[in-house]
Amino acid sequence: MLGSTYSTRSPGPGPAARGASDTDVGGRPLHNTVPDLDRFFRPETVAVVGASDTEGRPNTGITRQLIAWSQRVGARLFPVNPGRETVFDLPCYASVTDLPETVDLAVLLVGDPLPVIEQLAEAKVRFAVAFASGFAETGEEGAAAQTRLAEVVAASGMRLLGPNTNLNAFEKFRDDLTGPAIALITQSGHQGRPLYTLQELGIRISHWAPTGNEADLETADFISYFAEQPEVGAIAAYVEGLRDGRSFTLAADRAARNKVPVVMVKVGRTETGARMAASHTGKLTGSDAVVDAAFKQFGVIRVDGLDQLQDTATLLARAKPPTADGVVVYSISGGTGAHFSDLATAAGLDIPRLSEAKQTELHQWIPDYLNVANPIDNGGHPVGDWRGRKIIDAILADPSVGVLICPITGPFPPMSDKLAQDLADAAESTDKLVCVVWGSPLGTEDAYRTTLLGSSRLATFRTFGNCISAVKSYLDHHHFAAAYRSPFDDAPRTRSSSARKAQALMRAGHQLSEHAAKQMLRAYGIRVPREQLVTSAAGSVRAAGLVGYPVVMKASGAQLGHKTELGLVKIGLTSASQVRDAYRDLTDIARYEGVELDGILVCQMVERGVEMVVGVTQDPLFGPTVTVGLGGVLVEILADAAVRVPPFGEDMARDMLGELRGHRLLEGVRGAPPADVDALVDVVMRVQRMAMELGGDLSELDINPLMVLPRGQGAVALDALAVCR
Amino acid sequence: MLGSTYSTRSPGPGPAARGASDTDVGGRPLHNTVPDLDRFFRPETVAVVGASDTEGRPNTGITRQLIAWSQRVGARLFPVNPGRETVFDLPCYASVTDLPETVDLAVLLVGDPLPVIEQLAEAKVRFAVAFASGFAETGEEGAAAQTRLAEVVAASGMRLLGPNTNLNAFEKFRDDLTGPAIALITQSGHQGRPLYTLQELGIRISHWAPTGNEADLETADFISYFAEQPEVGAIAAYVEGLRDGRSFTLAADRAARNKVPVVMVKVGRTETGARMAASHTGKLTGSDAVVDAAFKQFGVIRVDGLDQLQDTATLLARAKPPTADGVVVYSISGGTGAHFSDLATAAGLDIPRLSEAKQTELHQWIPDYLNVANPIDNGGHPVGDWRGRKIIDAILADPSVGVLICPITGPFPPMSDKLAQDLADAAESTDKLVCVVWGSPLGTEDAYRTTLLGSSRLATFRTFGNCISAVKSYLDHHHFAAAYRSPFDDAPRTRSSSARKAQALMRAGHQLSEHAAKQMLRAYGIRVPREQLVTSAAGSVRAAGLVGYPVVMKASGAQLGHKTELGLVKIGLTSASQVRDAYRDLTDIARYEGVELDGILVCQMVERGVEMVVGVTQDPLFGPTVTVGLGGVLVEILADAAVRVPPFGEDMARDMLGELRGHRLLEGVRGAPPADVDALVDVVMRVQRMAMELGGDLSELDINPLMVLPRGQGAVALDALAVCR
Repeated sequence: MLGSTYSTRSPGPGPAARGASDTDVGGRPLHNTVPDLDRFFRPETVAVVGASDTEGRPNTGITRQLIAWSQRVGARLFPVNPGRETVFDLPCYASVTDLPETVDLAVLLVGDPLPVIEQLAEAKVRFAVAFASGFAETGEEGAAAQTRLAEVVAASGMRLLGPNTNLNAFEKFRDDLTGPAIALITQSGHQGRPLYTLQELGIRISHWAPTGNEADLETADFISYFAEQPEVGAIAAYVEGLRDGRSFTLAADRAARNKVPVVMVKVGRTETGARMAASHTGKLTGSDAVVDAAFKQFGVIRVDGLDQLQDTATLLARAKPPTADGVVVYSISGGTGAHFSDLATAAGLDIPRLSEAKQTELHQWIPDYLNVANPIDNGGHPVGDWRGRKIIDAILADPSVGVLICPITGPFPPMSDKLAQDLADAAESTDKLVCVVWGSPLGTEDAYRTTLLGSSRLATFRTFGNCISAVKSYLDHHHFAAAYRSPFDDAPRTRSSSARKAQALMRAGHQLSEHAAKQMLRAYGIRVPREQLVTSAAGSVRAAGLVGYPVVMKASGAQLGHKTELGLVKIGLTSASQVRDAYRDLTDIARYEGVELDGILVCQMVERGVEMVVGVTQDPLFGPTVTVGLGGVLVEILADAAVRVPPFGEDMARDMLGELRGHRLLEGVRGAPPADVDALVDVVMRVQRMAMELGGDLSELDINPLMVLPRGQGAVALDALAVCR
Repeated sequence: MLGSTYSTRSPGPGPAARGASDTDVGGRPLHNTVPDLDRFFRPETVAVVGASDTEGRPNTGITRQLIAWSQRVGARLFPVNPGRETVFDLPCYASVTDLPETVDLAVLLVGDPLPVIEQLAEAKVRFAVAFASGFAETGEEGAAAQTRLAEVVAASGMRLLGPNTNLNAFEKFRDDLTGPAIALITQSGHQGRPLYTLQELGIRISHWAPTGNEADLETADFISYFAEQPEVGAIAAYVEGLRDGRSFTLAADRAARNKVPVVMVKVGRTETGARMAASHTGKLTGSDAVVDAAFKQFGVIRVDGLDQLQDTATLLARAKPPTADGVVVYSISGGTGAHFSDLATAAGLDIPRLSEAKQTELHQWIPDYLNVANPIDNGGHPVGDWRGRKIIDAILADPSVGVLICPITGPFPPMSDKLAQDLADAAESTDKLVCVVWGSPLGTEDAYRTTLLGSSRLATFRTFGNCISAVKSYLDHHHFAAAYRSPFDDAPRTRSSSARKAQALMRAGHQLSEHAAKQMLRAYGIRVPREQLVTSAAGSVRAAGLVGYPVVMKASGAQLGHKTELGLVKIGLTSASQVRDAYRDLTDIARYEGVELDGILVCQMVERGVEMVVGVTQDPLFGPTVTVGLGGVLVEILADAAVRVPPFGEDMARDMLGELRGHRLLEGVRGAPPADVDALVDVVMRVQRMAMELGGDLSELDINPLMVLPRGQGAVALDALAVCR
């Protein structure tokens, strides 16, 4: 199964040669190449391999659709089939080698595309689409067949879409719609159908890439390509599994640099979903928390439902950047305003109180007893006459207002029709975002179908929930895009001396002793307690004198976990006699428990601080990831941790701390001083460097606890566990 | 503002006399009276006070609507207006005292309803509706006017709907629809409009109660009444603020006993929402966490959006009880099945793997390479012929299946039309729940409008999210209803001797000393450490001898908090000299800090356990509430606590523990033994009894920490704080 382990391959087998500076210190690419898919989406010549016009055969219907499509887009189509002279009156060719000219695109309707690929490559065909199923989605045997197919394609220089894909790229797209469009990527064609249907509501769709099994062209390639197309306002994707973590983050990075929003349904919230997706397109879904982290780092907007995908992508594609974050809720009912504002505030939107001057202005048209501070309740009547439009314009003129939302919960034509028209008209004369929620469960009303949907300037929703989450994503996206700085630009490219020191300590296939793990940390400039490894009682007393009383003594050995539970830790030892006794006790216990030791650690006792954990874990899709969490008993009962995918900047390391539910512990509670957050962030960044430099060789690293001392005093790794691959 | 403090009044000012057994030990009602609203909703005679037929006046439109309505329902209508002889050709009466017969219902279109109320009462009118605004929703003055109005109504024996309400109760309801109906309650008429509109989709609405400011009839009255009506399958409510916590829980209890689901949007998730709702209907929204708890206790289903209210209420009104919890997801695309199942599993639905036998049966009609374990992917083609119906029937015949869900994401008429018809047909021949998600953003397709909505046996949704949450609520509701036992039946009715002892210790307006607070706990059978209050060094040594070494010593005094931070606690004292020194230190610090002591507590030192907090807080709407949470530093940083409204049973006390994010701490982590959960539950129940018996006199109680010892060893209140009103 391709993509089942993160790879150091460049994200596409394209021809671009890369120098040393194109990879990070771990050998993984820092840039991707945007595939030139212009001729894929707009080919001048198309061959249909396996074309048929025999009624009743599946290929016949497909051939008919492809002919209609080629006529629509002005492409010349060549049927290929050794068994016939013509197909639907077009001259038919026995094989692709017989084609009269080089074609841009070959559509493969044959059961086994493998033998055709080499012929196509020889014929200099640039793109192929393979419909055949029976590959990675069916299990091991199919996965092996897919690997072979991928290898042949990679060697050919041609780019392949599929296998296990379909005709969606060659659907009929409305060309009468203008303005920014949605480009669509789906790993299951049926799941893209609702978005395609949006065209009937006047929403422009520019492309549809049904990626299927992604033996070659993958979701990341289409994200990169779409992010470079001027007509694309937003990319909407339905994804079951990503092929490779790095190619995905590089593609998302490109979209972020270009400020093109990517909105995505990503299956795999649960184990069940992950398993089912695997049986469908044969891809790993990856650890969902890591997927969430990568999305957050690169600004990809994750939604759950296809309805949210539609609503959020439509809004983000069309709306101009906000001039302010303030959201005004305007309605013909105080109840509606209260309800909407309650949900919007809970979702994190800012519903600012309007100035007294603005309220006075609004009260020219709205009765005095109604609340116009925001939400604005007009009581209904003013919408029926000339005042309706005045009110909307006055709201939009307020510089604190970036978004106007008008929830119309029920159709009440005397009011709602006029209100819809005023909103549509006002939206024409402003760059600010004007949203309407048409709450009627029918959706057949003329005000909705004609007035609201007829305006490409309005953002029209059917539910409060989808409106609120789309507006939140809209504001968040523009904040993110404005502040975005690619972490790939700052990623380390050369190996540090720390890495060489650390590598000397690593033993392949082993869990290192605590002492060795701490030496690795020390190599990376992470503070550990003063400590000495001793192998005699006399040595332990000498060591205690050097380290300084009081001391902690711990058994040290490879493969040794759960030291506290086994009684293999002694703390607060204040005299030589206590140290001597402790040495005897620890070695006795180890002998009794049958534990092999490399000695006893005599360590400096570190004053109390906030116990945290910092670690490295390998994700099958994204490779090494960095985790930080609350330590001690909390990490076990709450699993309160945040994760990030390298490379990431210091801002993201701080962001991780803010995500912890127990983050207030770092600010100092119950009279404790604030913790040294800067030192904690510094440790996270150093651990990230370890993760990148040591790569897959470091299967696991766990600093637990990292004692974060009061501000200005640093952080000390009291215990560490390292497992080498 | 009525309802701003919880009251001991009976929930309606109805005439039923109550004996002592009708109230709990705190004097609050244990039963409510269902108001007889038959004649309100189906009056035979109606007076319209302020009726008009002068074009251009607001009352004229309302009068016209009321005349049309009365003709529709066969009621006789009498206009009342001193200024005219006739209104719309009906004879008009100068005042209600001139009416030719006793009317069931008077609709008051006058600006100030107050003067009319007494006349109406004299004329034995049973019900009145007041449209006038300008009451509690406008501020203090309006609230005072509303209180006067409420008093006059209460004295009159008449029941009033309003003020600040509207015509919604007298809308046109479709009488051609059969089967279980939705009864609707809204505090803002506009917010009910989408639900009313559901009738155009074939969904039966039986009643609409627009409760407005609830000076008399309140949401709880309508819940109680609707829960007794045979045609009502579910109650849907949009509520901004509840008038009284007890009347609400009693009404919800009635609905739970009758197994009538109540689905509710309740504004007030945020402070903003709460404030805005108050300015709209003049009601307090109460603490949202307490509202959530009361909903959970009495099975009220809380939803956020009006779309969810529609979808959930419709499903719950119509669907028969489930025969199994298993949900099957059936679709024409593996992607759709994976996506839906992922979200459904994340929401807690059970998508069981079907038996091998059932899978073999399904593979008769579905190709072998497709997954039919659940979700079931039919690959598309089988729906087009006779196999489509066979598959559905075979799924529904499986005893492990309670719910069949078919997500149809895109309209693709050759398949989706036939699939819709098969589902509609199959739903006719089963009592199991069959759900369809019609994912097209259009909703104008014939298969949707005619086939799906035309079936009252199918539950049809537009989004995955709403389908999943409605099905979850459906299964949860039936589990809840089947197991429901009213806590009011078991609520204590007579004061215990514990209460008398505790009351003797209470001092109005004061925070008690730790010692006094612990004596209150002891009175209720809650274990506290052995301890003695002493006032001399010699006394402290004697006390330590009695209590037993090691001891803890703490300063004790009324109004004394933060003892640890002030250095007023000494732990682990093991000798007479340490005790003597501690006594001197504590009194020195207290003198230095200017703290007044009633002595020094010498306490038994309790071995380590799990630190919890248990407490009582007063909610403005619901009265005393009981809280349990994680203690120590956790309570401060995580606020990890659960709350309940008395009365509640032991099952709910256990439920509270399950709600804690850190509940695993009680199971024993890092080698610690499991905690004595039974003892913790026992303390919660005893604290509930305190809360009920002491009522508002106990403003606040906080046991922090309650040390929960290992299983079988009990729980000990190490510190307590009590504040008396």
